[in-house]
Amino acid sequence: MNNAFFEINNDSLLIIDQTKLPDKRDFIELHSIDDYFQAIKELKVRGAPAIGIAAAFGIAFNVHGGSIPEIIHSVNINGEILAASRPTAVNLFHSIERMKAEADIFNGEPENLKKHLINTAFSIMHREIQNCMDIADNGLSLISKGMRILTHCNTGMLATPGIGTALGIIYNAFDKGLEPFVWVPETRPLLQGSRLTAYELKENNIPFRLITDNMRGALFRHKMIDIVITGADRIAANGDTANKIGTYESAVLARHHNIPFYVAAPLSTFDLNIQTGNDILIEERAAEEILSFRQCSSAPECSVYNPAFDVTPAGLIEGIITEKGIVRAKEQCIKDLF
Amino acid sequence: MNNAFFEINNDSLLIIDQTKLPDKRDFIELHSIDDYFQAIKELKVRGAPAIGIAAAFGIAFNVHGGSIPEIIHSVNINGEILAASRPTAVNLFHSIERMKAEADIFNGEPENLKKHLINTAFSIMHREIQNCMDIADNGLSLISKGMRILTHCNTGMLATPGIGTALGIIYNAFDKGLEPFVWVPETRPLLQGSRLTAYELKENNIPFRLITDNMRGALFRHKMIDIVITGADRIAANGDTANKIGTYESAVLARHHNIPFYVAAPLSTFDLNIQTGNDILIEERAAEEILSFRQCSSAPECSVYNPAFDVTPAGLIEGIITEKGIVRAKEQCIKDLF
Repeated sequence: MNNAFFEINNDSLLIIDQTKLPDKRDFIELHSIDDYFQAIKELKVRGAPAIGIAAAFGIAFNVHGGSIPEIIHSVNINGEILAASRPTAVNLFHSIERMKAEADIFNGEPENLKKHLINTAFSIMHREIQNCMDIADNGLSLISKGMRILTHCNTGMLATPGIGTALGIIYNAFDKGLEPFVWVPETRPLLQGSRLTAYELKENNIPFRLITDNMRGALFRHKMIDIVITGADRIAANGDTANKIGTYESAVLARHHNIPFYVAAPLSTFDLNIQTGNDILIEERAAEEILSFRQCSSAPECSVYNPAFDVTPAGLIEGIITEKGIVRAKEQCIKDLF
Repeated sequence: MNNAFFEINNDSLLIIDQTKLPDKRDFIELHSIDDYFQAIKELKVRGAPAIGIAAAFGIAFNVHGGSIPEIIHSVNINGEILAASRPTAVNLFHSIERMKAEADIFNGEPENLKKHLINTAFSIMHREIQNCMDIADNGLSLISKGMRILTHCNTGMLATPGIGTALGIIYNAFDKGLEPFVWVPETRPLLQGSRLTAYELKENNIPFRLITDNMRGALFRHKMIDIVITGADRIAANGDTANKIGTYESAVLARHHNIPFYVAAPLSTFDLNIQTGNDILIEERAAEEILSFRQCSSAPECSVYNPAFDVTPAGLIEGIITEKGIVRAKEQCIKDLF
C-alpha cells in the first residue's frame, strides 16, 4: 500500500486538499509559509504526524538570507508562524523545535545549511513512514481473525506520510489475511470519519460500516465491537492522551463494556514536558463548524461549544502501540521508551 | 407558553413540517390517511406523544361508510396503515388500539360513532397536553437553581401537543425563575437537537449551547453537566427504555461520572406487554440519512448501520418522571402507576 496523498515536488509540498474529500481529489501545492499556515489551520492537511511533516517542509522550503544568522532567523520566524496554526497536536511543535535546533547547531556554509534543513525534513518524513510500518507490525499481536475494530476520526494515509497509525494496523492485518472489520464513526463536526476514513478504507477494499458518533454505545451494548484503536494528538508523560473529540467517549464506553481501548501513536506524539492531560491545550474551533455541515446549515444561529479534542485519562487506556512496541499508559513505561 | 405547532382545522390536522426546520416554517395540512402515514414515516411529525396524536386524528378524520360495521372496518384499515409507519414509539400503537376499541364497544348511530371517534382523538390530545404539564410539575423537584441539564433529541413542543416532556420540565423551571441552562446535542443523523431543540429553546429564550453528540463525554469529564433528562419512545415493564439513538451513551457517561440520568415520559409511552428492552423493535432507517446531511453529501457511497433508537437498561436510570410522579425504573414501581 502506498500513500498517494503526499508528494515532494522540487521545492514545494503537494498535498490532497482534505477539506474537499470525498467529492473531489484536488491536489494543492504549498509554497509560501502562509500556504503552509493556512493549509494546517484550515485542515487541508491534518493528522498529528502529517502536520509535523508539513511544518518541517514549510520551514525548510522557506528559508531566506545569505548568511547563517539570516537563515536561522528565517527558520525561527517560520516556526513562530506555524506554531500559531493549531495548538493541540504536539508533532507540529516537535518538528519546529527540531528544525530550529538543526539550524542552531549547524556548522558550515549557508548553502549547505539550506540543504541540511531540507534533508532534515525528508529525514523526519522517512522516519514517520517507518514508524507507521513498525506500529502496524507491533499492533498486529492484538488482532485476531475477523475482529471488529472501532476506530475514530482518521488515522491513515491521510493523517501520516505513511500507512497510518491505528488504520496502519488495520491495513497490515488485512494484508496478513486477518480479515479485520472496521466500524467508522463519522466524527462530527468535520467528518474525518465519513469523509476521509470511509474514503481510504473503500479505496483499499477494507470491509467497514459507517455510523454516526452516537451509535457507538448501541454497538458496544450488542457486543458488536471487539477492540477499540484510535490515534493521538498529544500524549502526556503519565499517558493521558488528547485526541479528536469523542475519543474519550469511546474509552468510557469500552471500559463500561469490558472491551480493550488502545491508542496507536509514534513517539513524536508524546510530550514528556507535560505531566498530565490537564495541561494539554485544547483547541476550540469556530461555531460555524457546528452550525453547519459542510455547506448546509444545520441549526439556527446560536451559541455553541466546539472543542476539537478531548483527553482520555491513562487509566482507561489498555496500552499505547508505538514503533518501539506496545507499552502500558504509565509514566515509567513511557519514560523507558525514550 | 403555547404549542404553536399543532392545530386542528375542521377535519384536518395542521402541523409544522419538522423536516424543513429551522430554515422554513412550512405548515402542512394532513387529510388522507396516506398524508398521515407519510408525515409520520418521513418525520414531518415526530416525537412519541405527537405521533400518537397524529395517528388518532388520522384515523378519526378518515372513517368511511354509512353503517357501524363499515366504520369499524375503516378504523381497522386506517390503523393497519398507520401501524406500518414507524415501529418503535409505542404511543402510535396505543392510539390505534384505543381508536379501535372505542369503535368496537360503541353503541349508537353511525353519525354519532364518527363524532365519538373525533372526540376520542381530542380527548387523547387534551390528556397528553395535561400530561406534559404534570410531568413538568413533577420534574421540578429535581431542578435546583442554575442547573446545567443535558438533554437529547427533541422532547418539547415539537414532540408533543403540549409543552413537552424533558423540555417541558426545563420550560417550567425557566418560568419559575430557576435559570436552567441546557446542553443540546445535535442528535445525528436527523439533527432533531440542532434543528428542533435549538430552535424551540431559542424561540423561548432559554439559555443553551449546541454541541455535537461526541462532545458529551468531555462535558461530563469537566463537570459541566449536573443532570441528564431525556424523553422516551417505549418503556418496557422492567423500566428498560428505548429512545433516540445516543441516549444510551448519555446514560453510560452519566453513570461513569456519577451524574443522575432521568427519563421523562407519560404513561402512554410505557408498554407493559413487553417485559424487557430486548423485545423492543428498533427501527433501522435508510443509509441515505448517514451518507448525507440534509442535502449535502458527507461520505462516499458505502455500507452504513442506521438504528434510529437504542435501549437504556433500567439499571442506568435514576428515575422516570411521569404525570403521576417520579418512579424508580423497577417493575413493581412501574406496575403501581397503572
